[in-house]
Amino acid sequence: MAPTQKPDGDKRGRPDSARTESARGRSSRPKPGPKDLLEGIRTSDRTALARGITLVESTLPDDREAASELVESCLPFSGNSIRIGVTGVPGAGKSTFIESLGGYLTGRGLKVAVLAVDPTSSLSKGSILGDKTRMNTLSRDERAFIRPSPAGTSLGGVTRKTRETISLCEAAGYEVILIETVGVGQSETAVHGMVDFFLLLKIAGAGDELQGIKRGIVEMADAIVINKADGANREAARRARSTFEQALHLYPPKPDGWRPEVLLCSSTEHTGIEAIWDLIDKFREKGRKTGAFQKKREQQYTAWFRQAVSEQLLSGFYEIPGVGPAYDELEQQVVARRTSPFRAAQQLLDQFGPKR
Amino acid sequence: MAPTQKPDGDKRGRPDSARTESARGRSSRPKPGPKDLLEGIRTSDRTALARGITLVESTLPDDREAASELVESCLPFSGNSIRIGVTGVPGAGKSTFIESLGGYLTGRGLKVAVLAVDPTSSLSKGSILGDKTRMNTLSRDERAFIRPSPAGTSLGGVTRKTRETISLCEAAGYEVILIETVGVGQSETAVHGMVDFFLLLKIAGAGDELQGIKRGIVEMADAIVINKADGANREAARRARSTFEQALHLYPPKPDGWRPEVLLCSSTEHTGIEAIWDLIDKFREKGRKTGAFQKKREQQYTAWFRQAVSEQLLSGFYEIPGVGPAYDELEQQVVARRTSPFRAAQQLLDQFGPKR
Repeated sequence: MAPTQKPDGDKRGRPDSARTESARGRSSRPKPGPKDLLEGIRTSDRTALARGITLVESTLPDDREAASELVESCLPFSGNSIRIGVTGVPGAGKSTFIESLGGYLTGRGLKVAVLAVDPTSSLSKGSILGDKTRMNTLSRDERAFIRPSPAGTSLGGVTRKTRETISLCEAAGYEVILIETVGVGQSETAVHGMVDFFLLLKIAGAGDELQGIKRGIVEMADAIVINKADGANREAARRARSTFEQALHLYPPKPDGWRPEVLLCSSTEHTGIEAIWDLIDKFREKGRKTGAFQKKREQQYTAWFRQAVSEQLLSGFYEIPGVGPAYDELEQQVVARRTSPFRAAQQLLDQFGPKR
Repeated sequence: MAPTQKPDGDKRGRPDSARTESARGRSSRPKPGPKDLLEGIRTSDRTALARGITLVESTLPDDREAASELVESCLPFSGNSIRIGVTGVPGAGKSTFIESLGGYLTGRGLKVAVLAVDPTSSLSKGSILGDKTRMNTLSRDERAFIRPSPAGTSLGGVTRKTRETISLCEAAGYEVILIETVGVGQSETAVHGMVDFFLLLKIAGAGDELQGIKRGIVEMADAIVINKADGANREAARRARSTFEQALHLYPPKPDGWRPEVLLCSSTEHTGIEAIWDLIDKFREKGRKTGAFQKKREQQYTAWFRQAVSEQLLSGFYEIPGVGPAYDELEQQVVARRTSPFRAAQQLLDQFGPKR
């Protein structure tokens, strides 16, 4: 069978977890066009923003052109936020932390958007941000905008939609974008590739903090925050901080010259949050001076472009008349081991691939 | 800049970690052709096998055709092994476990090949199988063949090469293929997609076993093995087993009807190894009866084919004369936010993409 799931996620329908915000954007009124949406987004109309994101997330072929137009028109107004990735295993308290940090920031007059990247959510019924009641206070905050993970069958699809959603939120004037992701595989790498600052949330354990941690994640982190540093947990959190500080010393400085720091916080008692924001601010200021901030942004755009080329090349290829049946035929030969996957692919591309 | 790293890893040169086996295969003798290599492989000549794998791993364009021919000629003799994926965080004792299990199997007269999938090894200087001295006994075993992770800049490249290497090892008569991977992101998913049986290795902690574990991994495991269940550790290992057994009960049965089990072992005292092999054997017998084994294999071949199409389509596209300069030009416009990545990709594909 030819792959019916295109790289950007062709599956119609949305799991429950993605309905909360988008339901609002899908009233019975006639669909507004990209021009109207842009206008609404530019005046910070949350309904327009939600509708715009729904359009971007749509997998209907008819919506593709309008979505592309909307993103295009938002781009000149985008880029003026700090994009912060927040990762951590389930149980680290990501939602509570985001609610605490988000509330602190809106209290300072900043507009905060919270997005999620969770390619597994369609499988596991929305583990993050699916249930918005988990961010009770923030979701009622006038200056905050919360959007669950887009429904996408593939990480690639989720990544592209999140990148576009960031642009829309920035065009709507959101100054801080918090992107939550759960530590189950590739999604951290994807989120790391689209944010300015990557924050790893941990809780103190029984001294074995480093055992369970994925080495790649520590290398990506710009800050490690030990959450739940309150009550009886305080001492363990302090010990965990030393452990991580020692571990971080083993790594060479990052390409941008930044030395990651380890901080403590309590999301429930709202302690340590200000210090975290100060650190992020310091990171931004330093990056602006050295040019590292701008350089990272440029890399994000080139990565986005590279991904767009791959996705469109692949999805366009499978739409060529005749590719489907030829693919199915060759796949049968591969499964029967009458030809190798490499050879079969060669044959398919000789027939239908781009000509030099 | 146009992406110079093709999806299948275009980087010349090999890190130290990949030199051990391949150095043997690169003597000053003239390069044997694919026909000679097949002949050697079919007579279980380890030098021929090592040279064949080196050919498959080569990124030189000149080697591509010969490599493809070799894989093609090995395919009819392949498929007759059980392919076992072994994953676990650094410190779980993967190498010692594989040495213990491998030694048990060769002791039973079986031929065992050990491969590794570690896309990070070029960065982190070969964390797994890089140092073959870690498998002292097994590496001197006549019935065992150990091969470190191929040097590849991308997971895709490593995955393809490992699939092809499996075929070569099977054509050489290896009956058990153990594929080690380290728990740092996407590699487990990739390995899970190419093996029959997926084994998660754990050690007992301080009761927080489930905290640090990635949910996706448990869902993939066909067995969870608590390693280092010896000496003072025995009691903690037993408790860990109950925890995992309870956790596994929360998952629905797997699509193939298999119920994962939790076992204890000590790789240093060689206890529990036989029970693990018995379980794998039971899994294989059951799968053969129900057809699940064959079905999984077929899915592996179709996934391999799909990956081959993507890789060749992408690498072929970037080789089209004119694509490079056009890509660079568009990328600059994207970075300057004069156009969106989506629109720029569209433009590139209108000009150079496959025509309907």
